[in-house]
Amino acid sequence: MKIAVDAMGGDFAPANVVEGAKSALAEYSAIEKLALVGDEATVRAECDRIGLRDRRMEIVHAAEVVMMSDSAVQAVRRKKNSSINVAMDLVKGGDYGAVVSAGHTGAAVAAATIKLRTLPGVGRAGIASPFPNEHGVCHLIDAGANVDSKPVHIFQHAIMGAVYARHVLGRENPAIGLMSNGEEEGKGNEASRGAFELLKASDLNFKGNVEGRDLFMSPIDVIAIDGFSGNLVLKGCEATAKVLFKWLKQELKSTPFRTLGAIMAKGAFKDTYKKSSYETYGGSPLLGVNGIVVIAHGSSSPLAIKNAIRVGKEAISHAVNPHIEEEIARHNVAVD
Amino acid sequence: MKIAVDAMGGDFAPANVVEGAKSALAEYSAIEKLALVGDEATVRAECDRIGLRDRRMEIVHAAEVVMMSDSAVQAVRRKKNSSINVAMDLVKGGDYGAVVSAGHTGAAVAAATIKLRTLPGVGRAGIASPFPNEHGVCHLIDAGANVDSKPVHIFQHAIMGAVYARHVLGRENPAIGLMSNGEEEGKGNEASRGAFELLKASDLNFKGNVEGRDLFMSPIDVIAIDGFSGNLVLKGCEATAKVLFKWLKQELKSTPFRTLGAIMAKGAFKDTYKKSSYETYGGSPLLGVNGIVVIAHGSSSPLAIKNAIRVGKEAISHAVNPHIEEEIARHNVAVD
Repeated sequence: MKIAVDAMGGDFAPANVVEGAKSALAEYSAIEKLALVGDEATVRAECDRIGLRDRRMEIVHAAEVVMMSDSAVQAVRRKKNSSINVAMDLVKGGDYGAVVSAGHTGAAVAAATIKLRTLPGVGRAGIASPFPNEHGVCHLIDAGANVDSKPVHIFQHAIMGAVYARHVLGRENPAIGLMSNGEEEGKGNEASRGAFELLKASDLNFKGNVEGRDLFMSPIDVIAIDGFSGNLVLKGCEATAKVLFKWLKQELKSTPFRTLGAIMAKGAFKDTYKKSSYETYGGSPLLGVNGIVVIAHGSSSPLAIKNAIRVGKEAISHAVNPHIEEEIARHNVAVD
Repeated sequence: MKIAVDAMGGDFAPANVVEGAKSALAEYSAIEKLALVGDEATVRAECDRIGLRDRRMEIVHAAEVVMMSDSAVQAVRRKKNSSINVAMDLVKGGDYGAVVSAGHTGAAVAAATIKLRTLPGVGRAGIASPFPNEHGVCHLIDAGANVDSKPVHIFQHAIMGAVYARHVLGRENPAIGLMSNGEEEGKGNEASRGAFELLKASDLNFKGNVEGRDLFMSPIDVIAIDGFSGNLVLKGCEATAKVLFKWLKQELKSTPFRTLGAIMAKGAFKDTYKKSSYETYGGSPLLGVNGIVVIAHGSSSPLAIKNAIRVGKEAISHAVNPHIEEEIARHNVAVD
């Protein structure tokens, strides 16, 4: 399989991207070709610096870079030679199977939607963001590809999340929840209540309304939500984890005695961080477009990039898109 | 001042409520009367058990209790003698200044809206939920009183939050943010984009769109948001904190050496917990109704109850409602 990586995307690009690609090439023999898309001289210098020499790697030149300040659609339309656009073109051309990017999320979603188009029958693509869960991993979909979602979009996100959980993660009968402001039936806003009815009437393994704690503690595989609220929940959870580790660190350093205790218990902090960190999961697949697109975190470490490439690899090898197409057709709901 | 406390509300009622009331009476001499509203025999037995004997305390009998499984409006309409209804009646009658409840949030909001009504000009009441912030405290409003909010409701929530921050918390020129799926102007869903325009055109100290991290790390006093997303963000953040402490505890207990380190650093965990816990803040004022209503966390400890009573006391003494009425009139936007 062939995977295109946006070498210029992310807060620490191209360094972390190139290093992550090196690890991925070393670890995943299924990768036949890995394209590093970006400014050729810059990317080559970075490869030389870390000693990335692999005949499966090729550098594909892209003259422009999308900046975080660019608007998503403008970035795609005006910066035609940006790394995300060129990477997406490799998939559009049919030669490459997946794109991985830690750059501007909006631009990646726009480029994917404009260039690859949504799969037949799919109204809107959705970002499936993995949350560490005591029973495995829970994917929140949509974590921010859309803002004003209709019930049918939320319903289709649930279907696509279920396909991903079944075919890629091997969950036989994925449990689906709908995130709402309470567990009781009837809770929710207009869009989520509409999605509830569609989910209830379907043959999906629908567990009803769920709340924040279910992301981490319940045997739920997929939580469907509109993209606006989903993005806010994702960022709220991330910010909470970040600030708690920060405050805890400050408190642990406040006396020498506490510091000594912290050094002794160091492994526990590392293990908890590892368990809760997005680095371990790597990336969020954008489900519903005609190609595999993996959105990695903006501040991705090399480990996060490697794991995002793994997510792309798995989505290709488990043929997630043909299965999505099939399931979307089977559930047969009208989208506008 | 006189404060009515829903003695039957909360997961650990009446025990924690009565104990919290006892602490509040001991600490706050401004309280002239504190009504414990609930089943008289049960509440009296609890008072006797913990030795609460204060001539300022009175037990007001309420024959019914709202259960978490009750629907909000039904609870108010059908259980006329429930503790939350009777407590709200004490405020409606004009004798009491505030209600504090750790019970069914929806029922408390419904009882407040039906019995007390919203203040003149206010479209919808909003829950202002305090978040621990490095620059003080940040109130997220609305944290769940409403589901389908219109731009004008979100705008009014910002106004009310600003009044609360200014008059109760003493922030001279409160900084207001609007929570969205990105910081750039133009981000947001239909409702939040509409609220952005209203905020931008007003003379409020509006800082634009903000994200999850701003709850904890930015000098922002008030973050406005629709009640559905706000509730999901609040619960997502709470769940993250809870699961991180849980996982960290498990990891710390996994080897004797780590456990010893954890014992040495114990104070750091306690201080971080204290800093991040809702117990310290106590309760969330429901702003916009004609009376002071404080929503405490369902699993409130006695400390949380005491602090929720403090929130009620402060809202009365700083005359938050006349100020809200004035500011709502001054901003003069039409609500339907």
